[in-house]
Amino acid sequence: MQDTERYAALDLGSNSFHLLLAEFRNQRMVRLHTDKAMVRLAAGLDEERNLDPAVAERALEALVRFRPVLTGLPTDHVRVVGTNTLRAAANADGFLQRAEDILGVPIEIISGIEEARLIFSGVLAAGDGPPRARCVIDIGGGSTELVRGEEKPSKLESLYMGCVSYSRRFFPEGAIRDKKTNHFERARRAARAELQGLQHMAEGVEVVGASGTIKSVARVLNGGDLGTIERKAIDRLAEQVASAKHVDDLDLPGLEEERRPVFAAGLAVLHGIFCELDIREMSVSPYAIREGIVHDLAGRLHGGDRRADTVATLMESGQIDTAQARRVGDTATTLLSRLQEDAPRATVQRLRWAADLHEIGLALSHSAFRKLGAYMVENADLAGFGSREQEHLAHLIRNQRGRIKPPREHYGFHPDPNLLLSLRLACITHRDHIDRDITDWQLEAKKNRFQLTIPQAWLDQQPAIEDLLYQEMEHWRDQPLPLKLDTV
Amino acid sequence: MQDTERYAALDLGSNSFHLLLAEFRNQRMVRLHTDKAMVRLAAGLDEERNLDPAVAERALEALVRFRPVLTGLPTDHVRVVGTNTLRAAANADGFLQRAEDILGVPIEIISGIEEARLIFSGVLAAGDGPPRARCVIDIGGGSTELVRGEEKPSKLESLYMGCVSYSRRFFPEGAIRDKKTNHFERARRAARAELQGLQHMAEGVEVVGASGTIKSVARVLNGGDLGTIERKAIDRLAEQVASAKHVDDLDLPGLEEERRPVFAAGLAVLHGIFCELDIREMSVSPYAIREGIVHDLAGRLHGGDRRADTVATLMESGQIDTAQARRVGDTATTLLSRLQEDAPRATVQRLRWAADLHEIGLALSHSAFRKLGAYMVENADLAGFGSREQEHLAHLIRNQRGRIKPPREHYGFHPDPNLLLSLRLACITHRDHIDRDITDWQLEAKKNRFQLTIPQAWLDQQPAIEDLLYQEMEHWRDQPLPLKLDTV
Repeated sequence: MQDTERYAALDLGSNSFHLLLAEFRNQRMVRLHTDKAMVRLAAGLDEERNLDPAVAERALEALVRFRPVLTGLPTDHVRVVGTNTLRAAANADGFLQRAEDILGVPIEIISGIEEARLIFSGVLAAGDGPPRARCVIDIGGGSTELVRGEEKPSKLESLYMGCVSYSRRFFPEGAIRDKKTNHFERARRAARAELQGLQHMAEGVEVVGASGTIKSVARVLNGGDLGTIERKAIDRLAEQVASAKHVDDLDLPGLEEERRPVFAAGLAVLHGIFCELDIREMSVSPYAIREGIVHDLAGRLHGGDRRADTVATLMESGQIDTAQARRVGDTATTLLSRLQEDAPRATVQRLRWAADLHEIGLALSHSAFRKLGAYMVENADLAGFGSREQEHLAHLIRNQRGRIKPPREHYGFHPDPNLLLSLRLACITHRDHIDRDITDWQLEAKKNRFQLTIPQAWLDQQPAIEDLLYQEMEHWRDQPLPLKLDTV
Repeated sequence: MQDTERYAALDLGSNSFHLLLAEFRNQRMVRLHTDKAMVRLAAGLDEERNLDPAVAERALEALVRFRPVLTGLPTDHVRVVGTNTLRAAANADGFLQRAEDILGVPIEIISGIEEARLIFSGVLAAGDGPPRARCVIDIGGGSTELVRGEEKPSKLESLYMGCVSYSRRFFPEGAIRDKKTNHFERARRAARAELQGLQHMAEGVEVVGASGTIKSVARVLNGGDLGTIERKAIDRLAEQVASAKHVDDLDLPGLEEERRPVFAAGLAVLHGIFCELDIREMSVSPYAIREGIVHDLAGRLHGGDRRADTVATLMESGQIDTAQARRVGDTATTLLSRLQEDAPRATVQRLRWAADLHEIGLALSHSAFRKLGAYMVENADLAGFGSREQEHLAHLIRNQRGRIKPPREHYGFHPDPNLLLSLRLACITHRDHIDRDITDWQLEAKKNRFQLTIPQAWLDQQPAIEDLLYQEMEHWRDQPLPLKLDTV
């Protein structure tokens, strides 16, 4: 039994990659193994978002090192997430495809808001005392997340500032100040500008910092320990760093050498946060996004899938006809079970969610609802979902009927024709919002086609559906597996 | 005073163009002049949506004939609308640009749902008795609209079937039946399939038909009069037509020669509607979309602008922070008044609506809210709005901050940099959701730049805003009129 409660999380961040192998014992997370590689991916991207080959090699080597830890775990016990920097790099040169080949599991690209949610979940997983109102702050390589909440996040913010991106933008070749410009001051002002209007995030609650930048500042201030960051101490450190000329000149005990190149930028962001949000004291958590990922994975398997809540909320705000969603979902999953008896739980779940959301665009438009719905599902912050999952749902929503449009060119997006066919046939069956029994339908994926067989007596009762099914054959004509309809 | 209450509407449909000049006397519409040209635009489009030059010439000649009627009316007393066929044609070869040059007024492309709303409004404008629950049906060249409502529409449907598109799709070269196929029957079945699930639209209410196809059927049945269409009579007519071999064989008294090529297809659609919606009797209205347009125009000028209601509804369903929308809108319109003292009411109104909706995407996404909001506003059915207005609003929402992206290449879409600058500066001013007084700002559109002048004392109070304003100058650097910020 022990193995089934073991989970692995891999966080491919803009600055570093982090691996966590953890076990749940009596619902408490025990960290078995952690590993880290400071790959500095964001720094390896040029203006055109091409990834420097040396950086790519460094990153792939790290993954080769991590791989053995993932091997042997059930696939739904492993989750690998990347942030937007990785998406950009991936598209440039197929890096992500190679990374997936090494790891043997898909990499999910997540939004900043999803990152924020997972970080909060990770800090919560530390379980240090009862849940209380907190503001969790995480400064990454490319973005900074702020989350306020108690048992779950109530406000999430993701800002485009991070230790790597600010190093590139404000500290030319590592210069902290030169004759003309105080680069540190410019970076801090830019960070404060980003934080405008967010004072409420940290007001009156405990503030917790997580991840590399904040831990490195804490270690410098506390002689190598995490502890807390006091306002006066960081004020002094900021003045000290701001008066140096170059990052190479920084002589700070406790500063790891590999952190040095991005330390000044990270400190400028952190000090900007202290000033603008008027923070007196920040405790530093050793837990971060990877603990949140493991926490989430365990939840998915034990009845607390965040994604189900997300879909339910979206259905409500989108004023979706839930009876129709259920009707289409029931028929679609029945059809899928005929195509693929042993369809994995995650696949069936995805089809159900696609059916739940297939009419999400209807509140906005009658004629453009499919493309609107697809766009919304693809681009919205959907808590718990990765971008590829959202793209797949969007693909199904866009193609719920009519001509089948190929998905956008994308590194690793493989739409599943079984899901598409099941959803489309279900939409046809219930187009008039009426329950209909499809027990007598036979549906099979043959080597060279999908074979649908329906009793003629059934079709005779439903001439309009018969027409639509024949039109449907036309739509599948150019697909890898065309659809053939026979009657008996 | 009489002239100011005179309005003109021009409906550029897929089958014919219709002109109406009308006057309001004691809030009653009096039709002064109507004109019509059966241009059959939809038939002039090939598979690639290229417009046949002969058809284009025919269309432009009609506009030349209509032009004198529009001349001399105030611009907000004229509205020219086109349907989707026209949009497709326009994009193909700049036809729409030429049409606008002839007419001297912009042409608005409207969605099927907006078409339906205007048709209902037009039938209502006939004012034959007190308002009562009705279902209004309009079969056009490319689409069929169904609207149910009483004083205003409660349910709107727009279906992709029309007398021109069905002629092309189902009646090859005018054949009604040949040895193998009963084309009329196929067209009628296709129409019935489209209507699946819409039985409720006509249930228990008076059914009213409008526009050419329905009027031509009524005239054939009633010896040239409109009157009503009885179920038994149309059943008989459908059988009669279905038994003919070719549209040229139809010998129907009362059928206009120019209606002949699309009559069979129109009848198949209409008969499909009678069968599927189980209609016993349909009264035929001489009023249609053009009367609705005039009605709407008069409403806009007398405090009943449908667009304002639409924006209000959208703000509510999108959970928009109304205080922030008002704050940004107030500042933006103040800035616009400095750039352009005599800005037309419609321009100020547009800026206000852009401010109202600029955060519409926030309910769905934190980081992608601008592109999501723009996409929603561009593609949603927004009652009262034309597509170009929606595109302009979407352009403003997309570019409310950050890099300024050029609008998509589009035949006649001219974004107004005054609006864009006013909105962007207002967003900067209130980025932290705080009221701020900009009385001391000076803003001017010079020949070669926008000149913004702000007291240094004001900026000193707001360092974060000062930074954002300097960044804003960067964003305008490559614009036709760059932005210059000076302090005094």
